[in-house]
This record gives sequence, C-alpha cells and structure tokens, in this order.
Amino acid sequence: MSVTPQERSAAHVVLDVLASWGVRDVFTCPGSTEAPFLDASLDRPDLNVWLTPHELTAVTMADGYARFAGGTPGVAYLHTNVGLANGLGGVYAAQLAHSPVVVLNGLKARSIQSKRGFTAPPDVGAAVAPYARWRWQSLRTEEVATDLTRALQVATTEPGGPVWLGLPEDLLARPATEVTTPSHRSRAVSAVRPDAEAVATAATLLARARKPLLVAGADVARHGACAQLVRLAERLGAVVVHEDRRAFERSAFPTDHTAYAGFYASGHPAVRDADLVAFLGGRCFHEFEEGSIAPPADDALVIHSNADPVELGKAYGADVALSGDHRALLTDLLAALDGNESTTDWPPSESLRPPLREHASGQLTVHEALDVLATHVDDRTRIVADATTSNAALFERIPQAVPDQVVTTSCGALGWGTGAALGVQVARPQDRVVSVTGDGSLQFGVHALWVAARRRLPVTFVVLNNESYAAVAAALRRYDRHAARSETYPGKDIAGADLATVAEGFGVHGVRVHEIGGLRKALADALADDRPRLVEVMTDPADLGP
Amino acid sequence: MSVTPQERSAAHVVLDVLASWGVRDVFTCPGSTEAPFLDASLDRPDLNVWLTPHELTAVTMADGYARFAGGTPGVAYLHTNVGLANGLGGVYAAQLAHSPVVVLNGLKARSIQSKRGFTAPPDVGAAVAPYARWRWQSLRTEEVATDLTRALQVATTEPGGPVWLGLPEDLLARPATEVTTPSHRSRAVSAVRPDAEAVATAATLLARARKPLLVAGADVARHGACAQLVRLAERLGAVVVHEDRRAFERSAFPTDHTAYAGFYASGHPAVRDADLVAFLGGRCFHEFEEGSIAPPADDALVIHSNADPVELGKAYGADVALSGDHRALLTDLLAALDGNESTTDWPPSESLRPPLREHASGQLTVHEALDVLATHVDDRTRIVADATTSNAALFERIPQAVPDQVVTTSCGALGWGTGAALGVQVARPQDRVVSVTGDGSLQFGVHALWVAARRRLPVTFVVLNNESYAAVAAALRRYDRHAARSETYPGKDIAGADLATVAEGFGVHGVRVHEIGGLRKALADALADDRPRLVEVMTDPADLGP
Repeated sequence: MSVTPQERSAAHVVLDVLASWGVRDVFTCPGSTEAPFLDASLDRPDLNVWLTPHELTAVTMADGYARFAGGTPGVAYLHTNVGLANGLGGVYAAQLAHSPVVVLNGLKARSIQSKRGFTAPPDVGAAVAPYARWRWQSLRTEEVATDLTRALQVATTEPGGPVWLGLPEDLLARPATEVTTPSHRSRAVSAVRPDAEAVATAATLLARARKPLLVAGADVARHGACAQLVRLAERLGAVVVHEDRRAFERSAFPTDHTAYAGFYASGHPAVRDADLVAFLGGRCFHEFEEGSIAPPADDALVIHSNADPVELGKAYGADVALSGDHRALLTDLLAALDGNESTTDWPPSESLRPPLREHASGQLTVHEALDVLATHVDDRTRIVADATTSNAALFERIPQAVPDQVVTTSCGALGWGTGAALGVQVARPQDRVVSVTGDGSLQFGVHALWVAARRRLPVTFVVLNNESYAAVAAALRRYDRHAARSETYPGKDIAGADLATVAEGFGVHGVRVHEIGGLRKALADALADDRPRLVEVMTDPADLGP
Repeated sequence: MSVTPQERSAAHVVLDVLASWGVRDVFTCPGSTEAPFLDASLDRPDLNVWLTPHELTAVTMADGYARFAGGTPGVAYLHTNVGLANGLGGVYAAQLAHSPVVVLNGLKARSIQSKRGFTAPPDVGAAVAPYARWRWQSLRTEEVATDLTRALQVATTEPGGPVWLGLPEDLLARPATEVTTPSHRSRAVSAVRPDAEAVATAATLLARARKPLLVAGADVARHGACAQLVRLAERLGAVVVHEDRRAFERSAFPTDHTAYAGFYASGHPAVRDADLVAFLGGRCFHEFEEGSIAPPADDALVIHSNADPVELGKAYGADVALSGDHRALLTDLLAALDGNESTTDWPPSESLRPPLREHASGQLTVHEALDVLATHVDDRTRIVADATTSNAALFERIPQAVPDQVVTTSCGALGWGTGAALGVQVARPQDRVVSVTGDGSLQFGVHALWVAARRRLPVTFVVLNNESYAAVAAALRRYDRHAARSETYPGKDIAGADLATVAEGFGVHGVRVHEIGGLRKALADALADDRPRLVEVMTDPADLGP
C-alpha cells in the first residue's frame, strides 16, 4: 500500500527533513490545505500526528513539548490564515519562553493566492510578524526542504523561538524529485560563551558584595544550569529569589534551599537591602504597568545576563551585561570565583521571605486549595500553571525542588496551560503533569480536554473556579473610581459554567468540589488514575487574588 | 454615585461618541487594560455591555449584529494583543461580508509599550493588517474621540468593513476635558450611484439577451435591493441563481420564485447555456482551488457589479463593470429597461435546477436532518450557517423566501456561526434564530453557549455531528493518493465529544438525537422554548458531503 519512489511528493521530503531533526510528533488542526502532509504521514508510521480540535491547543502542545524535549523543536501544522489566527496566542507564548516552535502553515495554492481566493488574503504571515523570529512563505517546490531547514535552524539556535513557514498546497503535491536536498551542514549553531573579561568583572563584583541577591531567571532552567546556580549561591552566601511573577516562566532554583527567599517583588526586604542584584537569565523586567515592579536600589550594583542580548539593559540598564549560554556562564563565574568562599551580611533567607498569606473565609480559598495540591508534589510532578491572578499564590505555595517543576507563560494569553500540559506530558511520559488554571483560562483552552481523553494523556486538570475574571476586578480596584467605590465590577462575573460537566462532554471525567475534604479525595483519585481527570475547585469569589 | 463632570474620563467621551452613532451594544471579553472603559460603562445604563468568555464570540456577535442592525456598527472591545489574536478569524469574516465592525483594542500604557512590557509587543495592529479597512493606535488623549470617529466613519462607509483602533489604557484614564471634540460633520459618506452610461449599456445587453442569467450576490441583500432584483428578473424573463457556495454570504433572492434555479456551480445547465451572465453584487469568484468554479462560457457576455470596485474583473474580467449601491443600480437598470418586457428562450427554471440529492443510509443523513429543519422555517426564521461541508446541502434544502433568511460566512474560519447567531438575535429580537453548525465548528465557537445561557438569548443551536472534519476527508479524496486508495483519512476523526453534555455544562439545555423522530421532537421543543437549546444530530459519518 505504501508509495513507490515515483509517487513520493514534496510533502514526503518535508517529513524526511523533520525526521532528520528528531521530530517524532506533529501537533495539528488541519483543513483541506494540509492534504499533502496528511497523505504523506500515512507513509511514516514513526510520526505521531496529534489531531486537536483547535489551533491554540496544537500550538501550546508544541510549545509545552519543546520546553521539555531536550532541544527537539515542537512542530505545529496549521490551516491557512484562519488556523494561524487561532494559534497566535500560543506563538506569542513560545516567543517569550524562547521555545523552539516551528509553525508550518498550509496555504492555498499560489494560483488562488494571487486572486485572493478562499482563505487566501494577501500576506497571511503578517499576523505572526510581531511574534516569529523568522517567517517565510515557500515560493517554489525546489526550496521547500531548504526553507524548512532554515526554519528549524532559526527556531533552535539560541536564544530560540517560534518561526513561521507558509507551505502552499500545490508545492507539497509536486513530485519529491523536484525538491532540492538541504545541506547536511545546516544545523543549529553552537552555544555562545559570554565574554571572559565581563565574567571576570562580574565575579569580582559578586565576591566583594556584602548582600548579593541572585535572581533566578528562566534561561538558567532552560540551559540546564540550575545545579551551577545552587553552587554559585552557596559559594557567595547569596540570597536567591525567582524572577518577579509577571516574568516568571519556569522554576530555576530549589524553593527548599536555605538561600531561597521567594519572588522578586517591590517591597521585598532582600530587594530593598541588596548591594548587588544579579538578574541571571531573566528579564528586568516584563512590566505589567508603569512602576509595577521596583528596580534595584540606585546605589546597588546590577549584573544582568540573558540569552537574548537585546533584553539586556532594556529598561533599567546594568553595570555588567552578559549574554550567552548560562551553563557556560555560571561555570565560568564559578571558576573565576575559585578560592573565594564568601561570607555575607545577609540574615537567614527564611526571615527575608514574605510570610505566606493566610485567608479565613467560609468558602475554600485558592491558598487552601493549592496547599492540598502541594502535598502531592514530588520530584516527578510538573505543574503547568495558567491561573492568572492565582499564579502568584501558586508560585508561593507549590514546592519547586527540581528545575522546571513549575512552568508557566508570561504572555498573558489565557488558555495556554491546558495544551501546554499535554505537550509536557508527551515529552515526559514518566512525569505526573498537573494543569492548574482558572475558570476563565480553562474555557480558552478547553479543546485540550478532548485530546487528553482521546489520546489518554493522564494529565490532571485542576480548575480554580472563582466564577470571575479576577484580573478585571483587580484592575478596576486599582483604577479606583466608580467601580471600586460602588464595588460593582462590570466584566468580572462569569458565573454559570459547570466545567466538570463540560469536561465530561469532552470525555474527561470531571468532578466539582466545594470543600477541602472533597478536594483531598478528588485530587488523590485523579492523581492515582492513568486517565485524564478534571477537578473543578469552587473557590471563594471574594478571594480574587492580588 | 455617578461621576461629576470633573471625574469624567476620556473613556466617558468614547462612550459618548459611540452613543452618538447609535451604538447601544458593545461585545467584549475584557482584561485589565479595559478598566477605564468598563468603569465608565457604569455611568451609561443605556449601554449594553455583552460579556463573552472568548474574543471570537465577541467579534462574531458584533459581526452578526452589524449585518442586521440597519447601518449601526457592531462594536467589539478586545484585550491587548492576545485578545485581538483570538478575535482575528471574526475580523476576517467581517471583512468578506463588508460588515461594519469596529474593533476597539485596549492596549497597555504607552510607557509600557516602549519597553515591550506584559502583553505589549511592538506593532500589535500588525496582526489585523490583512483584514482591517483602516487601523490606527491613538497616540494622545486629545485625538481619542476623533480617532474613534474616523474608525466609525470608515467602517460604515460603503462598501463597509472592519476597522481597528488601539486605545492605550493611560489615554482613556485621562480627564475628559483633554479630549478634542470631533466635528459633527464626520459621518459616513452617502451611497454611490453607478455611472449612467454603464447602466444604459448593461440594460441594452440585458434586453437583447436570449438566455440571461442573473447571479444574486450578497450586496443585493446588504443594500436592501432584493425586491428590485425580483422585478428585474421578472421583467427580463431571466433565470436567477445564488452565488456559488464558497462565496455565498446571505440570501438575496426568494428560492420559491419561479425564476430561481439553485446555486451558480460548474456544470449547472443555466451556467452552461447562458448567453449573458450578470453577477450582481457578488464575487466572481471566491475560489476554493484552481478551477473549482467554472467561469461563464467564452462567448457569453458578462456584467459584474460589486460595491467594492476592486472586486470587479479580479479573476475573469467583465464586459460591463459597475460599482455602487445596488438599490440605486437596480432601480436605474429597471428604469433604463422601461418598456422592455422581454421574453427569453429559457426553459422553466425548475428544470434547470439540479435535482436534490437523496441519500439512503441506516443513519440519519445531513439532508434528512435539514429537511426536518426546513419544515420549521417561516418568514421570521433566520438560519445562521457555519456547517462547512454541510453548508451546500443547507443552502439547497432550506427555503429562503425572504432576504437574508440564510446568512453565513465565506471566510472559512470555523466557529463564526454560534457567536454570529447571538448577534443576529440581539439585532432582531423578534426573529427566531437558528444556528446550524458541524461538530467541528461548534467546538471552535462553543463559548457562545455560555452567553446564550447567561443572557437568555433564545437561539436554537443545531449541531450536525458526523464526528469528522469532513472537509479534510474530502480534500484527501480529491488529492487521490495514499489516503484515498486505503480509505484511511488522517486528521478526519474527531469522534468522542458529547456536545449536548458540553452545552449543559455551559448552561444550555442539550439533547442528542440519533433518528428522525427524535430530531422532530427535539427541534419542535427547542423552537417552542424561549431559552437557548442545543440539538445535537448524530449523522452518518459516511455522509461526508461533497
């Protein structure tokens, strides 16, 4: 039944190129323009085609996968301009996470494009322009494989990020023999080592600092350099915080370490008192609004490292700015510090850590719910967080002993978490993946439930349902005018959806719980199951987070 | 409790401008950046803020509303770049329908934009560039009202279409006194009358034609010129068809008229035999793929009219090309034909109409299901169709005695229909609105169910569930290679969702039916209810449409 060499199409070559880059999974929501790809996939039993019922699920699966696949890109195959539009929020998430996501976009034949035919507006790729590291539409069959190779190369070359390649269906239907074979030399370029002199300067400043604060950024986890960061903190006697919550993407420092002191935040005593702040592999900052996060004190020294040199000094400048691979960077820093076993003037980190917020109310609070989840977290657990206003509580409450224990997005596009959780599960089949969302975000990413059920991915979906767009209420409180005065919050109340029932409709066993005993049992049951489950936790609508 | 004049913000002025243009409804899915708008809305009890849990629902509601609101624009208020992305498919639908949709987009403060802050990438509006007739981000408080006025003016000026206006939150929070008042002269420009000489030429050709075929396009319905088209057809003795199914947007000719002969299609006997084809207010064509629709015979004369002059002669040229308002155009044509009571050589239109497809199978077919729906259609019924491969059967099966009885989109973005149906219901509270979707498209637009339940909009959602992306299977059959040979269609099988249960989760009473008796009862019950209902019709998965 399989094709003869004469029958092989350009789409077969596309799959060959993907396979040669280690791609075993393609996440798609196809339409008619993907016929050549789908047809060729029948000749590749080694390729896993993940069918999803919405492009946001396809792209966020590719993103979640790519963050845990050890360098293998996540590939999403979308349908023309309309599919691309639906996946765009996921592309933005991949951009901010430097996640190597390759968006292949089936386009109408060139003849139809020139006449503005069905789903063929001019410049389909314009929509992705603000988010893609590189974008191109293949113009001839000859270049399909070299264009794809370039896409893979750009996506995976540090600092990594999403790329877009438009593939008109008429090109992919052409014979494979017309396609030019890409050079075997076209691979991702090697990692970049930071400048030695700059590292030496940073080491000198760090060794001298009496109150050095290290801010553990996403690149540290992404580059597999968490162990080096622990050694650096110990050698310096530094206090370590995670990036501020709006920028946070992934756990990069063990929260059970004595040096750990919570999240970088305005008013944090360690931020206030530090004489040196080293933002290592993070952003400075990803500001929510003017003044939402306090920069280091004027007289503190600032070191900033990031894989993307354009991030350095973006808003507040740095005394030393380093770009490159963070495993190399931290290894070099440790070598430069050799012999310098520092003591510092810091009090115990525990005393610097903001107290956990307690909340007494008749109804279950987000904090109480997360504390129950925390009892289930072990080194195999991955928490994929997309809980908007509850994310801050989650970062605070969930233990993060191993790198990447909590992953999230700083993109602000609701619905990322459900698909991303599936992608993480595909990349890490041995891990226990828990998706934590709000009721709003679950609805944006609801289509992932069908995929979980259909493909029996054992993700547990925890939905913190406060029946509210809490972020809207919080903004109206900050705005402090008519709504705040009258305690009437238009645009906030989204009560009425029974998400456990919605989950059942998509084939995922769902249960709604109202109190802590029910939550304990439902969560234990869900985590013991090898099928996906959804636990809808009805939390106090008055507990709207910060 | 309401604000003093000193407390009025620029957002209050925005609402004043909207009110002065007759806008009583704003469809939104807000986030924090919409706080000034939401806060000001508390001072406008005359404004209906429609909260939706997804931007596609907000934009498609605005689109459905705008198509039936007699010139009042549909206004959607979206949240930053991530909200815009989710609504983009709906903006594309509005573009193709010339639907006056104003997309207001809450953006982060200018200070955050310049630092690429949270949800503040550069050039947010780039995503909408292929779809918006006009786009602009307000730069200063002073221009907010004049920018909005320009947006409203461009959206509503013929041929109409979506516009995008970015409104940074810091601008809208400023005092109202800083805003420049727009001129009361800034209104939509008047309709355009086609050139008299061209109309006279068209009339001469029409009067001479022995077999004139009139193709009833969307502009005829949009301009309220259906009665004139009926008179023209009768005076000429012409045969009338609707636009081809890929371009069809709305009913423009009564299907129970003796002149009516179905849809323009390749192989249609009237298309083959016509000596003159007049595409009136439609496209020629909105091609699905090269050769998917046959142009008129080489020796036939072609007249083409469209409100958008750029559409004229796009693919196949025209002997006479007319642009302008179709009520004026048809009135002028009728006047020019005065005294010309033509007889033609056409056989009865009924004999030209393709026979209805019959389908015998053990399971309920799409055609049978639509025939049941057809028995309920009266002049108050509006069918909003988003059923992909079943749309052709729907256009064929559902009687369309009154203008705009069936409305759909030619944009190819699944999920349009559920939100659009709600928008139509808002604009036409006396009408009985029925949304007809496939199981795939229902899932894309599922969020509209929550709005229907919450706001008690009595739309009946009919879901034709073949558990398939039938369009994918159809494309693989046309591709005719491995999949077709092995009758294995990857990317097709989306079985497993119980959409009646999903509807229940969103608060809409849902019922799943498997046979015709159950469908008859469920549909009668649904249409007798003053609440929304969903009827999930399980159709034969082998009945995958054309």
